Amino acid sequence: MAAPAPLSPLAPTFFPDLPPIEGVRFASAAAGVRYAGRTDVTMAVFDAPAEVAGVFTRSKCPSAAVDWCRKLAKAGKAQALIVNSGNANAFNGAAGRRAVEEVAKATAKALGAKPTTIFQASTGVIGEPLNAGAIVRVLDELAREAKPDALMSAARAIMTTDTFPKVATRAARLADCEVIISGIAKGAGMIAPDMATMLSFVFTDAPIAAPALHAMLAAGVKDSFNAITVDSDTSTSDTLLLFATGAAKARGAPSLRLASDRRLADFKAALNSLLLDLAQQVVRDGEGARKFIEVRVSGAASAAAAKRVALSIANSPLVKTAIAGEDANWGRVVMAVGKAGERAERDRLEIRFGDIRVAHKGRRDEAYDEKTVSDYMKRPEIAISVDLKIGRGEARVWTCDLTKEYVAINGDYRS
Amino acid sequence: MAAPAPLSPLAPTFFPDLPPIEGVRFASAAAGVRYAGRTDVTMAVFDAPAEVAGVFTRSKCPSAAVDWCRKLAKAGKAQALIVNSGNANAFNGAAGRRAVEEVAKATAKALGAKPTTIFQASTGVIGEPLNAGAIVRVLDELAREAKPDALMSAARAIMTTDTFPKVATRAARLADCEVIISGIAKGAGMIAPDMATMLSFVFTDAPIAAPALHAMLAAGVKDSFNAITVDSDTSTSDTLLLFATGAAKARGAPSLRLASDRRLADFKAALNSLLLDLAQQVVRDGEGARKFIEVRVSGAASAAAAKRVALSIANSPLVKTAIAGEDANWGRVVMAVGKAGERAERDRLEIRFGDIRVAHKGRRDEAYDEKTVSDYMKRPEIAISVDLKIGRGEARVWTCDLTKEYVAINGDYRS
Repeated sequence: MAAPAPLSPLAPTFFPDLPPIEGVRFASAAAGVRYAGRTDVTMAVFDAPAEVAGVFTRSKCPSAAVDWCRKLAKAGKAQALIVNSGNANAFNGAAGRRAVEEVAKATAKALGAKPTTIFQASTGVIGEPLNAGAIVRVLDELAREAKPDALMSAARAIMTTDTFPKVATRAARLADCEVIISGIAKGAGMIAPDMATMLSFVFTDAPIAAPALHAMLAAGVKDSFNAITVDSDTSTSDTLLLFATGAAKARGAPSLRLASDRRLADFKAALNSLLLDLAQQVVRDGEGARKFIEVRVSGAASAAAAKRVALSIANSPLVKTAIAGEDANWGRVVMAVGKAGERAERDRLEIRFGDIRVAHKGRRDEAYDEKTVSDYMKRPEIAISVDLKIGRGEARVWTCDLTKEYVAINGDYRS
Repeated sequence: MAAPAPLSPLAPTFFPDLPPIEGVRFASAAAGVRYAGRTDVTMAVFDAPAEVAGVFTRSKCPSAAVDWCRKLAKAGKAQALIVNSGNANAFNGAAGRRAVEEVAKATAKALGAKPTTIFQASTGVIGEPLNAGAIVRVLDELAREAKPDALMSAARAIMTTDTFPKVATRAARLADCEVIISGIAKGAGMIAPDMATMLSFVFTDAPIAAPALHAMLAAGVKDSFNAITVDSDTSTSDTLLLFATGAAKARGAPSLRLASDRRLADFKAALNSLLLDLAQQVVRDGEGARKFIEVRVSGAASAAAAKRVALSIANSPLVKTAIAGEDANWGRVVMAVGKAGERAERDRLEIRFGDIRVAHKGRRDEAYDEKTVSDYMKRPEIAISVDLKIGRGEARVWTCDLTKEYVAINGDYRS
């Protein structure tokens, strides 16, 4: 791995305080899976089995841990989560499956639980055998050291080429009881729908059953993790897990089994806000990113069409290099709209950078002032709005610019 | 426009001699459409109306010249071709259409022909009004100066960010008569199916009717221009035109009306070879390219599936940056196979760089030698072979690596 990249200029200026979540504790260790001198294995351990739901990469070649979690998520019970960075344990065939089983058994033994309640995720290099022994050796230490207030350390332990840890927290009301939702995520390359982030783990003390968690998660990723793209590449390992300890029940929170329950309205809003926050942090730490870009498409034939057009723009190397060059090159936006394959009429199209209309009715907007646009393009956050003016479909997606640093990071990753 | 990039290291070491093609003459002029101090308008003028066929961008926002040519190609008769570089005349609304009409009328007048036989193409910046007057002013000079041996100058005049002119020529036998096929092309960004090149023009003296030309062209682009990608972006202006003067008829060549005519076998082979040559030259001059990459996919469920997998690999920024870094990162190839959405079984997948098998049966090939692979990756031409081992579908596509120079060229294009 190359020397760590400098902190993304789009990193948050401060991290939120992460309040403890009743029923779950965290610990991280430097196991030397691949990296030296940093934590690379993290454990979340539940005081009692938690409810859990997950969404995973759509890759046809998923990692061994993804295969494992997908199977376990059906039962919906978790006693612990083990995550390692440095090695993705992907494309390792039977040896990959054995490594997952070895870690599951050893963790279960250390905690007195069933192996089928031990969720796992791995991130890092593909196709290199995972040293399960290195992970197994730190399990007792992790189980012993796990503390309620160690979520930020976990966020650091799961980083690979990330330049900052990604954390978010929300409070929500369940009937008259306040519950907490906190989450962590890591990126930062191979970020594309679906799933967008490589790894994200969200924890709550709300007493919500696994099927309801799953329904809310599946709905929530649509406009968050599945609406971001760094480089259009999809990881073999993308995993988003939502764990609910249910500890808030003791404080009077109602036990909820149905996602349609009206008492979940505030929780859903808080969860969606948290997922969007984490997803946008992943983009803000996109490899080599210097600009955070919001692409808004309106007036499309449908919401799905709007999203395809938005992703076509957000994934266009020519659009992304133009933004890197602080160039309001809306011609490339036209190109990306055109290549999306969705209905578009050149002579209706309207394009804005921020609030500045640069093109309308099939041509350049003569009224726009180059200097104003040019000043706008110097900002770290750029909004590109395209109104197709043929329907009511809308979508928003987020991406970052494509810089020489992206090429440098990815041209020298494995060496 | 930024300072011209240095010659691509993948440029051909010599250019072929381009024999004159009976029935067509060429001239180029420095009209100052956008660039100063270089030729930027070129004319091909036919002694008698030529048969013509074309294939065009699938962009939903095509340029005014593409709209124009698509209409004209139905009649299949060409008296002249006018091409300008520096301005794409795309997204210019009614003014764009008027510019095309103005050039068509003025050219027709200069040549004593019908405006509907004047084919046009424009390449360069999108959304800036095209100065048709600048083109019109040089038409008389072009008509006067046109010569049979000036095709190489035409190849230079249509360049934008290209670092070398792209030309190819073939001889073919039509019954007992030798005919010539010669073509030119320009890239070099926004190269993706379909169409891949921005502009390519092919000329022959064979007496072949427009419908037969069209059938052969549509078949020929499939494994040439529609099998290359530089950055997955599709231009608004992609145009490939094939003109047949028919002058070889006077030398005894038979007049052919059907693409299925067996006498066309040699011509088809020569045409396909020429199209592939030109398409590969476009990739060799991909913006910032330092490596020429052939992606071969075999064992897929179908040829179409093989091509989608191949393009997923060829378009992956992570694969392309790895090649730029001379890193045999086959994990990223696995990732790209996985994200293609086609059937693939991790535990059957076999991956080779050149002849070196690096992965098989779902894991790293323990037999491969890092040093041998590492030496191979230093070559300017890299072959990536993926055998999915589930069917008989095969495809080959070509691309180049993604370098910091690509970002530099495209982050500073319009300024």
